[in-house]
Amino acid sequence: MCATPVRPSGRAADQMRPISLETGVNKYAEGSCLARFGDTHVLCLASVDDRVPSWMKGRGRGWVTAGYGMLPRATDDRGDREAARGRQSGRTQEIQRLIGRSLRAVTRLEALGEVQIKLDCDVLQADGGTRTAAITGAYVALAQACRHLQAIGRVKAWPLADPVAAISCGIVRGQPVLDLDYAEDSSADADANFVLTGSGGLIEVQATAEGAVFQESELLALLALARKGVGELNALQARALGEDA
Amino acid sequence: MCATPVRPSGRAADQMRPISLETGVNKYAEGSCLARFGDTHVLCLASVDDRVPSWMKGRGRGWVTAGYGMLPRATDDRGDREAARGRQSGRTQEIQRLIGRSLRAVTRLEALGEVQIKLDCDVLQADGGTRTAAITGAYVALAQACRHLQAIGRVKAWPLADPVAAISCGIVRGQPVLDLDYAEDSSADADANFVLTGSGGLIEVQATAEGAVFQESELLALLALARKGVGELNALQARALGEDA
Amino acid sequence: MCATPVRPSGRAADQMRPISLETGVNKYAEGSCLARFGDTHVLCLASVDDRVPSWMKGRGRGWVTAGYGMLPRATDDRGDREAARGRQSGRTQEIQRLIGRSLRAVTRLEALGEVQIKLDCDVLQADGGTRTAAITGAYVALAQACRHLQAIGRVKAWPLADPVAAISCGIVRGQPVLDLDYAEDSSADADANFVLTGSGGLIEVQATAEGAVFQESELLALLALARKGVGELNALQARALGEDA
Amino acid sequence: MCATPVRPSGRAADQMRPISLETGVNKYAEGSCLARFGDTHVLCLASVDDRVPSWMKGRGRGWVTAGYGMLPRATDDRGDREAARGRQSGRTQEIQRLIGRSLRAVTRLEALGEVQIKLDCDVLQADGGTRTAAITGAYVALAQACRHLQAIGRVKAWPLADPVAAISCGIVRGQPVLDLDYAEDSSADADANFVLTGSGGLIEVQATAEGAVFQESELLALLALARKGVGELNALQARALGEDA
Amino acid sequence: MCATPVRPSGRAADQMRPISLETGVNKYAEGSCLARFGDTHVLCLASVDDRVPSWMKGRGRGWVTAGYGMLPRATDDRGDREAARGRQSGRTQEIQRLIGRSLRAVTRLEALGEVQIKLDCDVLQADGGTRTAAITGAYVALAQACRHLQAIGRVKAWPLADPVAAISCGIVRGQPVLDLDYAEDSSADADANFVLTGSGGLIEVQATAEGAVFQESELLALLALARKGVGELNALQARALGEDA
Amino acid sequence: MCATPVRPSGRAADQMRPISLETGVNKYAEGSCLARFGDTHVLCLASVDDRVPSWMKGRGRGWVTAGYGMLPRATDDRGDREAARGRQSGRTQEIQRLIGRSLRAVTRLEALGEVQIKLDCDVLQADGGTRTAAITGAYVALAQACRHLQAIGRVKAWPLADPVAAISCGIVRGQPVLDLDYAEDSSADADANFVLTGSGGLIEVQATAEGAVFQESELLALLALARKGVGELNALQARALGEDA
Repeated sequence: MCATPVRPSGRAADQMRPISLETGVNKYAEGSCLARFGDTHVLCLASVDDRVPSWMKGRGRGWVTAGYGMLPRATDDRGDREAARGRQSGRTQEIQRLIGRSLRAVTRLEALGEVQIKLDCDVLQADGGTRTAAITGAYVALAQACRHLQAIGRVKAWPLADPVAAISCGIVRGQPVLDLDYAEDSSADADANFVLTGSGGLIEVQATAEGAVFQESELLALLALARKGVGELNALQARALGEDA
Repeated sequence: MCATPVRPSGRAADQMRPISLETGVNKYAEGSCLARFGDTHVLCLASVDDRVPSWMKGRGRGWVTAGYGMLPRATDDRGDREAARGRQSGRTQEIQRLIGRSLRAVTRLEALGEVQIKLDCDVLQADGGTRTAAITGAYVALAQACRHLQAIGRVKAWPLADPVAAISCGIVRGQPVLDLDYAEDSSADADANFVLTGSGGLIEVQATAEGAVFQESELLALLALARKGVGELNALQARALGEDA
Repeated sequence: MCATPVRPSGRAADQMRPISLETGVNKYAEGSCLARFGDTHVLCLASVDDRVPSWMKGRGRGWVTAGYGMLPRATDDRGDREAARGRQSGRTQEIQRLIGRSLRAVTRLEALGEVQIKLDCDVLQADGGTRTAAITGAYVALAQACRHLQAIGRVKAWPLADPVAAISCGIVRGQPVLDLDYAEDSSADADANFVLTGSGGLIEVQATAEGAVFQESELLALLALARKGVGELNALQARALGEDA
Repeated sequence: MCATPVRPSGRAADQMRPISLETGVNKYAEGSCLARFGDTHVLCLASVDDRVPSWMKGRGRGWVTAGYGMLPRATDDRGDREAARGRQSGRTQEIQRLIGRSLRAVTRLEALGEVQIKLDCDVLQADGGTRTAAITGAYVALAQACRHLQAIGRVKAWPLADPVAAISCGIVRGQPVLDLDYAEDSSADADANFVLTGSGGLIEVQATAEGAVFQESELLALLALARKGVGELNALQARALGEDA
Repeated sequence: MCATPVRPSGRAADQMRPISLETGVNKYAEGSCLARFGDTHVLCLASVDDRVPSWMKGRGRGWVTAGYGMLPRATDDRGDREAARGRQSGRTQEIQRLIGRSLRAVTRLEALGEVQIKLDCDVLQADGGTRTAAITGAYVALAQACRHLQAIGRVKAWPLADPVAAISCGIVRGQPVLDLDYAEDSSADADANFVLTGSGGLIEVQATAEGAVFQESELLALLALARKGVGELNALQARALGEDA
Repeated sequence: MCATPVRPSGRAADQMRPISLETGVNKYAEGSCLARFGDTHVLCLASVDDRVPSWMKGRGRGWVTAGYGMLPRATDDRGDREAARGRQSGRTQEIQRLIGRSLRAVTRLEALGEVQIKLDCDVLQADGGTRTAAITGAYVALAQACRHLQAIGRVKAWPLADPVAAISCGIVRGQPVLDLDYAEDSSADADANFVLTGSGGLIEVQATAEGAVFQESELLALLALARKGVGELNALQARALGEDA
């Protein structure tokens, strides 16, 4: 991987921003994690709900779902308050569907029993990569909620099959780089979000040409970068969950 | 004022929760303050907008307005995400109207010129008194935004006439107490929110019987408590703004 | 109280507009009252519903709730039809919450049994003070509905603890005055709405600085005016209900 | 026409309910008429607006439009408040389109100039025939608003070509009857609404089979009844407008 | 009837456009018909639903309801996508109510049993007369769905009392003409939609003056034209259903 | 690629369903294509609009945007009519954003000038792969609209850089297969949508684990299948546009 500091931030091509995953950030939620990817800050809370959606009742299986929101001044240009506007944007809905799908992919829903875990990911400050920070932090909150369910005897077998984390990559001025900030994201020729498991499996790949088409070799270069980043994120997740001893 | 520790929290009747007003909590907003009243945490951001609402154009005066929201798991019972439900509740709208009115009451709108300042107050965690924490923190954010406008030469005369802060009081088990937390709020016979200026003027009084009617003497006792609390809040606001030297 | 005729209407400071509370104005409703405070006309109807809201079922207690609306040309400037716009304004919701809270404060909900009384207050013409006229008229409609429930044997013990009425006051050109009309309301330095019981208890106090802050002494002067006004309203309510013999 | 008293109300087949058209019922509107068809009471207000809809600007022609609403307890079964539900029903929209179309049909829009007249028809109490009462009363309000525009010199030539009124008819237990009340309306085999001009022209015919199909001869019998009723309504309109001397 | 070719299309006054009713156009629906009236193309699908609306449960009767929509570019001027705008227009709701009412008028709801048939009429291309094409095609789809219910033993007695079809007529340049296309519709002095049964009964008559009032004689001339058209439509319906042998 | 017929449809792993791209299917639209991928039928219409969105005005560049909808009975289970429900689903919005992005990726927006092309993709019948059929058909409609703009002299240089087409692939019972129908889609372990250009560039890759994670090698196998499919689709697009001579 190249290390010439061509990125606005001075980062190496394969270098992520400073990442922190802070737990214990809400007194009510069964799991909580404030995920910071540089200046992107996403509050991820897990709430346990005894009722599954009505279409799932009586099947003995659980459900994991996600909500996503962005505070109006999370970005430099203050946006509308979505609740005041009366509808969530397509982007918001797309992201909350992605978060829910990604976390469900590592959850054994039968092991949960008829319990629903709602993951609320709210962006306090945005500087690119909010959806990947949300997935990474939501996994920590989800794991805490599962521990809580285990502690109170509500679940027996551990319901999570594998850790999950996500990172964005992109082609910026011809070069594949890891963990785009907003300045890079808006000038990238292509960007991609990868959701990967701890054991290296792919859960979701979303790659999009922004200004120019991209090639298969570039997709593979981005995936290689993502593997490196997710490896580091998995380590931080384990530490946040106190599993790293 | 009585000091027998009958409150669930062990606080004296005229004792507020630990309060902190932390500034510099958002990299984009022209003013920002995280107001913590015990376990109630409200993020207050001020955004400067060059455009006033269309009905105000051409009058040479500014405007101050407020938005309010609560994260779904800010409370023990997870609420709906208002944006997903498609409308703000009556309570939400009532509070954002109150915040806007309170801040406008200390702003000389002609001094602002044709500039709008939007105050976004988002409750990260709630334990009673979110609207009073919001007003108190929003004043700090508003003052910072005014300094910014002064620094860039956009306003000449200082547009704020007086500091403003707010606090709740209530009659709990027969006794007037200051700064209700959620446990007290839900068992109070009456509660009241007071918005007061630094020089002791009244901006808003909202007193409501919850289980029993209340008397004029009780209203006055609550007001006296509120004056004590607002005095302390004004000192914290000045310190947060670096005015206390 | 002062009697110098400085008010646009020529009224004395402590003089209400001509008030009438006309009953029997709807052939279907279990209670009905057209409350006229000068040119402010509010149609108040009480509807008995056998079903309480779902969150109250099985508790053996009743509920009282309120709706509020304003016809598009109730005011000089024709407003939008809220149903066409697709949402109720914040002001509308704030008022209907106030009306419901005020009437519930004098209702013994256990005495009602599992019955809901809905109070619909629709402003046919507005000239200031619509919320206070609505509360005053809604009490008459509510009392009629309670009589109806008693007559059909649905409630045994009388469910209303005390009459309730409401009036606005304000500081206009430096002078406290009673029962603001629209012209006074829009030029007042401060205005206040008081909801009081027949025995003198306070249910709700809402006082707001409009152009200048107000002082404690002024709040007390407004409350004294309100007591005088509510006394007269209680007498008119009793007469409307045929209780004045 | 038959006179055997088979109708629940005891009316003859060709007899309308007691009708009154009361003007001067709103202090702000440029035209106002409370139309009472028996127990159906519709408040019809005309508001003059200097702005035509944007798609009509610059054509030198005016516009007439209508809004319709029903108070929640206008009927025996209390309905939802449409503004709270967040949308107007199909029935509401259908009726307001009919009212607007009917009144435009007698208005010379070029004579109005670029002025819009909004007709708000709000049902205070309903007992069948609300749309026909609304059209009949709206004509009176519209004519008053046109006089106002003439008085202030805003229109020169009288903009109304002909009076317009409307009435419902139906086949009830095999017999054609005039001006259905709610009891008849809900048991009719067919019902029809006719909007006719003072000179006998047809503006709108809406005839609907409810339980059984109907025949051409029956349609003609209903139209004959409607002509009789509209003749009487035109006389009442003229009287309400002071034109009957 | 006149045959002078004064119509833009060159059609005789009593001549319909080329009509086709094509069945088998959807692999899922229990009944399907693509109704083409010239360039007006409406896809009519019938869906059987085991659940009647909640207010009908337990009565042993079925229900027939209709939805209507128009693709955004069905017309020359592209319209809004109603789902994106967030509400159906008044016109859309009016038409779907008409379609439902018309089909219910020929259905013996008790013969259906507790089954609901939903008729979805979606306009792929519009050139006038969409509602009449929708009713005509929906009858074919409804009849197919009834056959399906009979085939699976869900209904015993044939639930349809009579065929139903609809056609528009209008006064164009003084002459009554049959089956208006869009060019005629927008220049007509009056237009009318007739919904008639196979045995000649009237289900719905909707006649509207557009530029000038119309007379009773004209209404009758339009009805005569409609009878001719509906006769032809009934024959095409029978052929589409394979009943014409 | 494997050819063992393990697919429910009997297709080989690398075999698409019968595809047709029929043009000239709407008399108003500037471009039109009915894309049929087996039983999936999507009507794709291009509408030219002289106005670009307001945020693009004055930049001399054009815009391409897309709408997507599904008729209620396009699927076996009849869905809600989105316009009646009052909001588009997250899925709908996600797809219409994807279509717009994909088509913009091959359009030189400066060559368009200030013109907007709206692509409406409406699913008449769905059997899996609606979004890929929509993109493939929308390209044909877009190219026709561009020809129209060229023919009327509104654009000079040809604005499309490359053809674009899309296809879904998936891992079904362990085997990578091309062009999933609904039965395969709902049982796939992973599925992916590829949007590719005629010259082999990648525009969008969306790959999702459904039941199990997938591996990099599988992603590459799916991409190889997609290249084969898109090659065939490009040939069909050229033929539909008459470019294959």
